[in-house]
Amino acid sequence: MKLLMTPIEKIGIVYAMDTEAEPLIHALSLKPLASPDTDLPGQLYHGTLGKLEIRLAVAGRDSRFNIQNIGTNAAVLTTYQLLKDFKPSILINPGTAGGFQGKKARIGDVYLCTNGVCFHDRRVPLEEFRKSMLGFYPVIQTPRLASELHFKTGRVSTGNSLDCTDMDLTHLQLNQADVKDMEAAAIAWVAWVKKVPFLPVKAVTDFVESHESAAEQFLANFFVACSYLTTSMVAILDFMENKKVEEL
Amino acid sequence: MKLLMTPIEKIGIVYAMDTEAEPLIHALSLKPLASPDTDLPGQLYHGTLGKLEIRLAVAGRDSRFNIQNIGTNAAVLTTYQLLKDFKPSILINPGTAGGFQGKKARIGDVYLCTNGVCFHDRRVPLEEFRKSMLGFYPVIQTPRLASELHFKTGRVSTGNSLDCTDMDLTHLQLNQADVKDMEAAAIAWVAWVKKVPFLPVKAVTDFVESHESAAEQFLANFFVACSYLTTSMVAILDFMENKKVEEL
Repeated sequence: MKLLMTPIEKIGIVYAMDTEAEPLIHALSLKPLASPDTDLPGQLYHGTLGKLEIRLAVAGRDSRFNIQNIGTNAAVLTTYQLLKDFKPSILINPGTAGGFQGKKARIGDVYLCTNGVCFHDRRVPLEEFRKSMLGFYPVIQTPRLASELHFKTGRVSTGNSLDCTDMDLTHLQLNQADVKDMEAAAIAWVAWVKKVPFLPVKAVTDFVESHESAAEQFLANFFVACSYLTTSMVAILDFMENKKVEEL
Repeated sequence: MKLLMTPIEKIGIVYAMDTEAEPLIHALSLKPLASPDTDLPGQLYHGTLGKLEIRLAVAGRDSRFNIQNIGTNAAVLTTYQLLKDFKPSILINPGTAGGFQGKKARIGDVYLCTNGVCFHDRRVPLEEFRKSMLGFYPVIQTPRLASELHFKTGRVSTGNSLDCTDMDLTHLQLNQADVKDMEAAAIAWVAWVKKVPFLPVKAVTDFVESHESAAEQFLANFFVACSYLTTSMVAILDFMENKKVEEL
């Protein structure tokens, strides 16, 4: 892995929702970048932070409803749109997620998901398919980043539903998930295919076990969680400048 | 839609599983085609049938387990891999699927899914997101193909699990699904994004409502269903030669 032994120069960032991404785009003064394939709904931005070259992709919107392309399909295609012509030292997926009160999560907590990315809604009870469908693609290790900037660390499990059925909860528990999102493992798959080191960063908007619906909690806490997420992303990017991936 | 008014010249075909695709690759003597991005697991083939130029993509395998890349993530990326540099008159997704005894499906039945493609495992209870996540991307209409070659027609609903929970069944019923698969709606999304007319063709391997597991039925009936699927695909391609999309 010679690639990893040089200082971080290029960072890729993939967001699902433009409303999650806009505060960071604004904070870093990123500018729109033309997509090589204008059919794709994903939108690209670029800029610099100190010595770092940054490219950011947002999954865009469903033109039929003018609504954000959340979920794994758009995450896959947008990640590929970003990585096809750009080989960053690290790809980061910041986003909002559900947390678990049973694991002492609080609204606005930001997790570095360095303990694994997996799926909880791809159930195929044939052993080799089962293992493949679970995900668990590589993620980077960032012990200094976590301890110096006081982040929680954990494992993210991905599924295409905002709600959580009993079956989903069973598989989230089997997966030993700390946060539940809708994109990370799909992005991790493309990062693995493209041989790019990956770091998911997730801010808690809702509690998975709550009697209140995830949708209500999501709407109530979204902007607070995004605010913490943006502040964290700026600190994470600052921390990465002049470091190697092994030094994170 | 001027594109549609010319006779069909190029046909794209996307399969999830190499074991589903191999009989057709053999029947048409298709040859491997180098992928423009060798990082991608998808495999491309090309050839001709009469005047038709055919390109076929298979989603490839998870190298960790040497197991086929089933499900929506690989379907999205493989479809894009095929359509990035190739603009066919039609994209076809042949595959195996679950049927419903309550709708008089039989093992080996082949459905032209011209009555819609949707998802049953992307539940987001916020109205605009809900509608977007349901899918329902465009599919072509093929009344002559269905009646002259005696195909069933119906609607396919896609999810990333081979099993079917009570919640999945509820949403399959709300979707008025005739067959349940693991890729069609994801492929339909990319086809829509790339402005390519789309036709899903699904052969029944198992009954969704059966007390026997889908996995056991799938293993028992897979090769029979694939045999019917291949015969059907050869007949469908033959039927398309010298016709316009509007004449199907």
